[in-house]
Amino acid sequence: MSNVRTPDPYPGWLSPEDLHEARQRLPMMYVEALPVRVDTLGYVTELGLLLTASDEGEMVRTFVSGRVLYRESIRAALLRHLEKDLGPFALPQIPPSPAPFTVAEYFPSPSPSPYTDDRQHAVALAYIVPVTGECSPRQDALQLSWLTPEECLSEGVQAEFVGGRGNLVRQALAHVGWGR
Amino acid sequence: MSNVRTPDPYPGWLSPEDLHEARQRLPMMYVEALPVRVDTLGYVTELGLLLTASDEGEMVRTFVSGRVLYRESIRAALLRHLEKDLGPFALPQIPPSPAPFTVAEYFPSPSPSPYTDDRQHAVALAYIVPVTGECSPRQDALQLSWLTPEECLSEGVQAEFVGGRGNLVRQALAHVGWGR
Amino acid sequence: MSNVRTPDPYPGWLSPEDLHEARQRLPMMYVEALPVRVDTLGYVTELGLLLTASDEGEMVRTFVSGRVLYRESIRAALLRHLEKDLGPFALPQIPPSPAPFTVAEYFPSPSPSPYTDDRQHAVALAYIVPVTGECSPRQDALQLSWLTPEECLSEGVQAEFVGGRGNLVRQALAHVGWGR
Amino acid sequence: MSNVRTPDPYPGWLSPEDLHEARQRLPMMYVEALPVRVDTLGYVTELGLLLTASDEGEMVRTFVSGRVLYRESIRAALLRHLEKDLGPFALPQIPPSPAPFTVAEYFPSPSPSPYTDDRQHAVALAYIVPVTGECSPRQDALQLSWLTPEECLSEGVQAEFVGGRGNLVRQALAHVGWGR
Repeated sequence: MSNVRTPDPYPGWLSPEDLHEARQRLPMMYVEALPVRVDTLGYVTELGLLLTASDEGEMVRTFVSGRVLYRESIRAALLRHLEKDLGPFALPQIPPSPAPFTVAEYFPSPSPSPYTDDRQHAVALAYIVPVTGECSPRQDALQLSWLTPEECLSEGVQAEFVGGRGNLVRQALAHVGWGR
Repeated sequence: MSNVRTPDPYPGWLSPEDLHEARQRLPMMYVEALPVRVDTLGYVTELGLLLTASDEGEMVRTFVSGRVLYRESIRAALLRHLEKDLGPFALPQIPPSPAPFTVAEYFPSPSPSPYTDDRQHAVALAYIVPVTGECSPRQDALQLSWLTPEECLSEGVQAEFVGGRGNLVRQALAHVGWGR
Repeated sequence: MSNVRTPDPYPGWLSPEDLHEARQRLPMMYVEALPVRVDTLGYVTELGLLLTASDEGEMVRTFVSGRVLYRESIRAALLRHLEKDLGPFALPQIPPSPAPFTVAEYFPSPSPSPYTDDRQHAVALAYIVPVTGECSPRQDALQLSWLTPEECLSEGVQAEFVGGRGNLVRQALAHVGWGR
Repeated sequence: MSNVRTPDPYPGWLSPEDLHEARQRLPMMYVEALPVRVDTLGYVTELGLLLTASDEGEMVRTFVSGRVLYRESIRAALLRHLEKDLGPFALPQIPPSPAPFTVAEYFPSPSPSPYTDDRQHAVALAYIVPVTGECSPRQDALQLSWLTPEECLSEGVQAEFVGGRGNLVRQALAHVGWGR
């Protein structure tokens, strides 16, 4: 944010520099979506996990996730990030209730919560989102894989999550009643 | 149930007479589904209400509802009653989580809860179920109408519910964040 | 239930024999409570697990659990079973919302769900119940122990559950946001 | 935030001026608590509403509410605001689950949601918090009154809310199963 109080041609817009500063001062509002395939009875058969490169160049598992912008609704942010990561034909079914199944609080480490994010303090509202359409990640670096609940909970896959996100998958599966 | 303890050719089956008796002795397990139309952001735009004749021959509003049978899962009971009342092409999206948005306890009047049912003590697990397909009630006596949240909360429509079900509609709309 | 349709002096009462029969024909309505100790911030620090003898004489872990009686409300059933198992000074805080955190469906094995009960088909509404008072199990055979979330999830303790109840503990801990 | 990038002696601290600017650019993270009195069965008997002066000098009803600070957990923010508004002896019972019963999105008017706040875009996680102790608002200007659910829903009281908060009370009461 600028000290010069002239009218701002882009209200709601933050320069990369100002966003960097805000991240040192305010909790950032995020949404996280766990895309799932369900059968006709509503049982979750697969979760959609993204494979992406971390800042350190490591391949890590993650989910659809992103910031809520100024004057953007939670639902609009969810849809925007789902379309960005799953493509325009995924047909995500945003849940009718605005209540998330859990809230994940990411803090710079050491964190009082199971979740860490060294860039910022982020509060993520987490939703389970059935998708029925075809998914084609639009971002080149990104790969989407559909894994069964068992696979998501396997040691191998759990080791590929960073920032505590493996725990969020366990919470999501518990929420949908999944038991091994 | 018979006093004669011979092997039962129809385990899980209750004669009308025995069902009548069980209703005087045990709480009956029900599911209730509020079918909704949602937009791409997940906002509820319409609720599907059934119009049916009460035992007294009066036309009353109700929702998809019915008993859970012996060895039937909640999800299977939901799907069965949704198909019975909305037809085979409704494409109901049973929610991924087994937790109902509320539990409605129907008691013979006078009832300690807002819900009454003079035939029995019924405990209904209530779910909001988006439907995307075409609905055609299969039972002749039944009519399905799609009403906006405002219409559902109007005095006229609220007066057409019996047994306290108008309250359940208010709870469902509150759960999806609806505010007039 | 008797075939002789004389007026019943004990409406709502089921003989052991009739209850046995009903269990072959109808889903039975249960409540399950996971008593927890919480700190001032609401974090769960301990779960109260019961140690009891199974029908086979084995010691097994279980939670506060029991049937909902005819014309008994869910809340009254919860309080009754909590008092029976934790004593009259436990001061359980029944949650303000009637919605359970999950629904556990117990079926005679083989079961389509993670939960089994060979006596019956039981549908259990599961609640997390903070208790602040002193607990003294009233039933002689019963022992109550308070375990940390880590202990509850340990292999040793998980092996002491039967009927899939270890899964319900994992669901409860996930619901309260617990992550290792 | 300052343009001069010298080390900041108070990380996490925002000057009133910088907070004012951030409010034009980022959604602000809030918590809202509806303090309730419950009976031994968990039924809500009363809600605690605050009476406070709006910026225009009008007396308005509101609830315990406030910002989540940088590196502050949701639970810590809830407790801090509850203590600020209800005093140190209220003994609030922060719920074990981090999931709010609803999320209220306040936008500068005209708002796409039922909630408005002309100062900012605020996202409030809303919780129902039983309190068992004695409440004594510490801020001079503030008065706390305990109202029954019926009173909260009365036209008179509903007219005293601003920014759509009357709707949040209706949602809270629906969540706890209240039906008139």
